[in-house]
Amino acid sequence: MKYPMIKWAKDLFPICRSITGSGQRETMRYFKRINPDFKTIKFKTGKKIYDWQIPKEWNIEDAYIEHESGARFAEFKKNNLHLVGYSIPINKIISKKELLKHIYTQKDQPLAIPYVTSYYKARWGFCLSEKQKKKLPLGKYKVFIKSSLKKGSLDIYQAKFKGESEKEIFFSSYICHPSMANNELSGPVLLNALIKYLKDNFPKNRKFSYRFVLLPETIGSIAYLSKFKKEMKKNIICGFNLSCVGDDRAYSYIASRDGNNLADQLLKKTLKGVKNVKKYTFLERGSDERQYCAPGIDLPVCGFSRSKKYKEYHTDKDNFNVVTQKGLEGSFKVMKIIIDQFEKSIYPKSKIFCEPNLGKRNLYPTLSQKGIYKDIRLRMDLLAFSDGKTNIKEIAKKIKQPYKKVFLEYKFLKLRKILD
Amino acid sequence: MKYPMIKWAKDLFPICRSITGSGQRETMRYFKRINPDFKTIKFKTGKKIYDWQIPKEWNIEDAYIEHESGARFAEFKKNNLHLVGYSIPINKIISKKELLKHIYTQKDQPLAIPYVTSYYKARWGFCLSEKQKKKLPLGKYKVFIKSSLKKGSLDIYQAKFKGESEKEIFFSSYICHPSMANNELSGPVLLNALIKYLKDNFPKNRKFSYRFVLLPETIGSIAYLSKFKKEMKKNIICGFNLSCVGDDRAYSYIASRDGNNLADQLLKKTLKGVKNVKKYTFLERGSDERQYCAPGIDLPVCGFSRSKKYKEYHTDKDNFNVVTQKGLEGSFKVMKIIIDQFEKSIYPKSKIFCEPNLGKRNLYPTLSQKGIYKDIRLRMDLLAFSDGKTNIKEIAKKIKQPYKKVFLEYKFLKLRKILD
Amino acid sequence: MKYPMIKWAKDLFPICRSITGSGQRETMRYFKRINPDFKTIKFKTGKKIYDWQIPKEWNIEDAYIEHESGARFAEFKKNNLHLVGYSIPINKIISKKELLKHIYTQKDQPLAIPYVTSYYKARWGFCLSEKQKKKLPLGKYKVFIKSSLKKGSLDIYQAKFKGESEKEIFFSSYICHPSMANNELSGPVLLNALIKYLKDNFPKNRKFSYRFVLLPETIGSIAYLSKFKKEMKKNIICGFNLSCVGDDRAYSYIASRDGNNLADQLLKKTLKGVKNVKKYTFLERGSDERQYCAPGIDLPVCGFSRSKKYKEYHTDKDNFNVVTQKGLEGSFKVMKIIIDQFEKSIYPKSKIFCEPNLGKRNLYPTLSQKGIYKDIRLRMDLLAFSDGKTNIKEIAKKIKQPYKKVFLEYKFLKLRKILD
Repeated sequence: MKYPMIKWAKDLFPICRSITGSGQRETMRYFKRINPDFKTIKFKTGKKIYDWQIPKEWNIEDAYIEHESGARFAEFKKNNLHLVGYSIPINKIISKKELLKHIYTQKDQPLAIPYVTSYYKARWGFCLSEKQKKKLPLGKYKVFIKSSLKKGSLDIYQAKFKGESEKEIFFSSYICHPSMANNELSGPVLLNALIKYLKDNFPKNRKFSYRFVLLPETIGSIAYLSKFKKEMKKNIICGFNLSCVGDDRAYSYIASRDGNNLADQLLKKTLKGVKNVKKYTFLERGSDERQYCAPGIDLPVCGFSRSKKYKEYHTDKDNFNVVTQKGLEGSFKVMKIIIDQFEKSIYPKSKIFCEPNLGKRNLYPTLSQKGIYKDIRLRMDLLAFSDGKTNIKEIAKKIKQPYKKVFLEYKFLKLRKILD
Repeated sequence: MKYPMIKWAKDLFPICRSITGSGQRETMRYFKRINPDFKTIKFKTGKKIYDWQIPKEWNIEDAYIEHESGARFAEFKKNNLHLVGYSIPINKIISKKELLKHIYTQKDQPLAIPYVTSYYKARWGFCLSEKQKKKLPLGKYKVFIKSSLKKGSLDIYQAKFKGESEKEIFFSSYICHPSMANNELSGPVLLNALIKYLKDNFPKNRKFSYRFVLLPETIGSIAYLSKFKKEMKKNIICGFNLSCVGDDRAYSYIASRDGNNLADQLLKKTLKGVKNVKKYTFLERGSDERQYCAPGIDLPVCGFSRSKKYKEYHTDKDNFNVVTQKGLEGSFKVMKIIIDQFEKSIYPKSKIFCEPNLGKRNLYPTLSQKGIYKDIRLRMDLLAFSDGKTNIKEIAKKIKQPYKKVFLEYKFLKLRKILD
Repeated sequence: MKYPMIKWAKDLFPICRSITGSGQRETMRYFKRINPDFKTIKFKTGKKIYDWQIPKEWNIEDAYIEHESGARFAEFKKNNLHLVGYSIPINKIISKKELLKHIYTQKDQPLAIPYVTSYYKARWGFCLSEKQKKKLPLGKYKVFIKSSLKKGSLDIYQAKFKGESEKEIFFSSYICHPSMANNELSGPVLLNALIKYLKDNFPKNRKFSYRFVLLPETIGSIAYLSKFKKEMKKNIICGFNLSCVGDDRAYSYIASRDGNNLADQLLKKTLKGVKNVKKYTFLERGSDERQYCAPGIDLPVCGFSRSKKYKEYHTDKDNFNVVTQKGLEGSFKVMKIIIDQFEKSIYPKSKIFCEPNLGKRNLYPTLSQKGIYKDIRLRMDLLAFSDGKTNIKEIAKKIKQPYKKVFLEYKFLKLRKILD
């Protein structure tokens, strides 16, 4: 495999991303080295986007809880999940009782640190495992969060590739989560591998155009849609939201609201015969398909995941025990097949009205006698069905010939400028 | 039942109606007391309406046959079916032989007085049962008909109710028959009950517009169409011709010529699972669906009846042994369901592109942690499916929630101006 | 049968036709006496037509092989199949060995003289049966071919008939084969009989327009399309290529590329219930349907034959043991039914909105009493379904009446200017 997705993910794992801020920018600097095609689109704090407003930019330097004994807990530098995302700054001595009001745990997973955020309401808080919480000693605590919430921007990254057709194939994933492997990094690394695949294999003369975006979930896709809805509705014929694509447990298809657009059809077709496929209706939507398929938006986008539901989700357990290169490659293969279907299908089209004069090209017997035409039956049949609307596989089926023979004959006739 | 249809029918039974004249006006004075919404549209005698011409107005005071012995037969005042409708005036002594040429009976129902008319050819005549006819004594007879045929008008009664949409639901029945209960009065009394139901239950903010007409059969609907065809074709999306809707024997659906327009679909759906349903094709049309579905008219109108075919039809036996309050109420219920479907269906539509920001409205948790969203699943699902094209029942089914809960959530979100 | 197709074919059998030259002109002089409507369209030698070029005109006076003993073989005057079509002139003494390189036989039919041509490559050659070839004595031979290849023209014959509609029904057959009966003359004689049928039976007020063409196969239809493609695509709604229509063995339908256009539908429908019907897909195309259905041409043309495949094909055995008047008449009948369907179908249309006032025309009882309308049910039903879009056969089926009765009623109401 040419694309070391797992390495990329591991490199990026330690960074504390959120919906805004320097963690996201650092992540994208890394990806831009892999694919310099990304352009940044900035939305300023305060800007209205549909029913929403771009929040302040959040940056975080350090955070911890310090017991009067000097013992530290919930150290951000040890695991960035310990801090509630978008926590306001604080530096204060408080009682244990007071502290506990700001401690979040996942009761049903006593050993896991949960992932908690409070983007739109000013709060501060720390996340611990239940076990850790229980071990907090009695006494006073200093709570220290060195964060900032300032005017800034929400950034979206877009890489577009023109093809012969204006019609676009669309891929979207998100960058807004701190150190979690499947529900964050798997999507962006797969998306970057797909960009590379496209450039490596279809460097020019692409049939279709492509749009890849990386953005913070929900607020990012809403901002992006508020700016590009019109062109997206005009051009996108098929799109996938990539989320949790790094484990090797299952393959999941999350239907669009429509349930049967081109994206649905292609993904279902591609997963046919694959083991461990799970199909979810739009009722089980979770990621940005929520926005892409919202009423009035109605883009032909469906969700693609490996395991959509897994117990490590949104905890510190979502790490490289969950995500593997094999898991990522399984996802890559599915999306690659879909890209190939767009780029590799051939629709032979005769360049000549009526039957071409094959005799003058020595491609047809010059003597006419019955029985003599059997040998060029395939040639004549391929020509007769090359209407530019039927792909070569369909033609092979129609003329009852093996695909390979038809394909070779197509190449042969294309070289001779008879077919296009 | 709030609407005493059977009482109305019994009150109106004695009146001698015809396609024009005072009997019809008296009938409508009664109905206008129930529903003052009726407006009268007059077509003057002689007016051309498509291939037809409005006839003279016919009024009748008295009629009978008097034997030389003084014995009277076929007394109009005893039963107005005894007189052939539109009979010209006469006052003459004639032989029994001559008289018999003007006597009409129903041979296959020897005890019944048939209902006979001659609107467009000047005639006079009397109707008797076969049995009565056989008993006519030998001798001379005086035939006495005090009728008049003068320039006047043909009157049509229309009640229209505006709704938010210009699209109309249309109900038509006829007033032109003398003392018969099912094939006359059942239709007009049902139509009046439906007007009252509409006003009582949807007094304002109606979604659809409604048009109710009472008119003489055939000539009346042709006249009406000649005047309103254009607006009817533009606005009417569903219509029913009400005829013979008062007995409790069967439910009948008479298909439109098209056979599958909205009226057909709704009536068939409403009658699904009902006992004793009879379906007739357009070949069995009988009443004004003949005009509403004529070539070039093509309105989406089908016929609704209880028994479409019954032996008492067009005789003096069509009385309150045939028509009952229960029968009328059965018909009322069917039409009520259809009106309800138009008025009560709600098509929620999001007023906001992408997901609304529910957090800022305190309708969504401001803290994000896994497991926290279960409680607002219904809200999010309702929003996600509120595309303005799916009604609330269909949404409830799609999102697998009880209708009532979905409806309450809809009300809640509508109040907050998120849904329309 | 009025049209002596078999006589025409027998008269024309001896002529040596090819894709150009005097044999074809002589044939057409004969047909022009039957149908003077044919116009000649000339394409000059050298003219480019799509991917092709019009070849030189070939004329032939005589040809034979003469053994040094004076014995002659392969005498053109005895059977014009003995000469390879488009043979260049020659007059030379050669060895038997050399001669045999120019002798063509049909190995799988040792008694048959095959039909061989070499239009586009300069060659000379003779055709013999295997048996004849074996009997050629040792010794020297004179080969004598008095042919000429000169600038001239390729001629196409077209007969067009205007109808009320510009939409055209199209018939094509070919004249380019020497003495063979089924795979040549059956098509042109049927086409001429159809022209006569059209003129005899629909001399004026035709509903549709008609286009009949006789042309050399392949090069002729390509030339014709290169000139008339635009108007043909605009106007032709249904067409048939007539080939091998003279035997009485089977009926064959060769699907258009589309496979389900009007020509396909009508031919399939017409052959329904007929014995010995063979259906071929477009993969089995053989004659000018190859050009008419080529990508970018896409005319609604399918092929019609009696036996499409038969062992006598392209040999001297394709004679009047194969083609019979009965066989030709079977083909004629099929095509006649199709012409009739275009010309005889009636789409009754009411000239009056709503029901016409039949009473005033004495076409409806003036007295109204139940049971009285049965007799005019057919009349009322015909009127109710006369929407101008349903043909009289379909109406008859819908109203469950015999076609004949409906047709008579239609005539009756048309005369009275109620229906159109």
